[in-house]
Amino acid sequence: MSGQSFALELAYDGTDFAGWQLQPHAPTVQGCVESALATVHGEASGRVPIVGAGRTDSGVHALGQVAGYRQRSRRSAETLRLALDKLLPPSVRMVRAVPVPDDFHACKSATGKIYRYRIVNRALMLPFERHYAWQIKIPLDLAAMREAAASLEGRHDFAAFATSGGQSRSTVRHLRRLAIREEGGGVLELEAEADGFLYRMVRNITGLLVDIGMGRRDPADAGRVLAERERAKAGLTAPPQGLCLVRVFYEERFRF
Amino acid sequence: MSGQSFALELAYDGTDFAGWQLQPHAPTVQGCVESALATVHGEASGRVPIVGAGRTDSGVHALGQVAGYRQRSRRSAETLRLALDKLLPPSVRMVRAVPVPDDFHACKSATGKIYRYRIVNRALMLPFERHYAWQIKIPLDLAAMREAAASLEGRHDFAAFATSGGQSRSTVRHLRRLAIREEGGGVLELEAEADGFLYRMVRNITGLLVDIGMGRRDPADAGRVLAERERAKAGLTAPPQGLCLVRVFYEERFRF
Repeated sequence: MSGQSFALELAYDGTDFAGWQLQPHAPTVQGCVESALATVHGEASGRVPIVGAGRTDSGVHALGQVAGYRQRSRRSAETLRLALDKLLPPSVRMVRAVPVPDDFHACKSATGKIYRYRIVNRALMLPFERHYAWQIKIPLDLAAMREAAASLEGRHDFAAFATSGGQSRSTVRHLRRLAIREEGGGVLELEAEADGFLYRMVRNITGLLVDIGMGRRDPADAGRVLAERERAKAGLTAPPQGLCLVRVFYEERFRF
Repeated sequence: MSGQSFALELAYDGTDFAGWQLQPHAPTVQGCVESALATVHGEASGRVPIVGAGRTDSGVHALGQVAGYRQRSRRSAETLRLALDKLLPPSVRMVRAVPVPDDFHACKSATGKIYRYRIVNRALMLPFERHYAWQIKIPLDLAAMREAAASLEGRHDFAAFATSGGQSRSTVRHLRRLAIREEGGGVLELEAEADGFLYRMVRNITGLLVDIGMGRRDPADAGRVLAERERAKAGLTAPPQGLCLVRVFYEERFRF
């Protein structure tokens, strides 16, 4: 048996991609990384299949997406890093390459993830922020948002916050933490850590919290919406550009 | 006499523009603002001429560019702000509109400017930084760069740092401050304040300072290059995307 499995940690700017997942006629992050790897390994097919930890939507960013793949021709982690540094566009960067046991699966072996959602809460959105945040012009009531966020933490059925189109059978997730940080200068960051997330779950939760922060809904609505488990009641979905996949956690033995 | 003169403070992302200055067949910031103003004022010509404080190059950004223009049809500062907020693209934002005396000239009345140049000094440049910084992978010697920077401060003939193509007769400028700040996380910011800048002066100075920081030249070279006043001796020009026009100062009576 030759070959070696690798986990690649990737950072990317989702602005110019039609999301993570491979599509035949649109630029995707997966397609971009697969063709760079095909060049590294001299794969005539032009593809070295990789598996991502999560399928980020168009416009969504990543600081720590993880992709797993199995090499047929052997390359060291350092060779990989140097080659991908040159072959990948500046909008996609490999942070590190880690050799992993062959049974590593970037999605199924994940034990948790952290997402961040950035909000610019002021009248002026700087041009440099436009691809990386959602602007809310009226001042948000942070106390109300935090009260609502606290009621969502824990193990719950998050069906109300799942947009249809996801692939999960169960809609129960453990939301370990849902914090709202003030970053200064009118920037807010929602940080969500869970054992897994449903399709658009962070954006749907953010949409509800912003509605509450604007005073359009009551903080107690968060718990009610959760209990009723109907997507229609949770309200608007926050736009993609504020979202970033920050980190993926794995079982201890994968030492990631 | 009807009409009112205004100074508009503008922030923009220079990435997708062919610079500030109006060009017939390329998207420029000036063209973008002039056509938005034409809509506000119902100018059939499609243009309301404005004068910028400085002509930033393609890829160069601004937090506080200033543009002056004279209204024929009267609009209040608040009306202007609301209208331009809607009409300008997200890559160009009006920070404020200030009524000014009619003899205000955004370029000629300026008494000083501040530019910042951002350097990412680490092996990994994040995708989100690529349009706003210059990556230098090897660790820079900040002490050497600061020593060189100090020797450039003051009133000097900066001919060695002027790329030809500028419109100034004199090449003497007063560089009031040239500071290098560590922003944390491997980010450096050069901040330059002067009574005025020659064409590409900040990028040419940055290029020399980086050469010095990389150990390719001696800190004392900065003073020598300055004294010899030959552009060819100053070395490379830093790329545009790290540069940002931060602020323009005016005479007291323009209260800007």
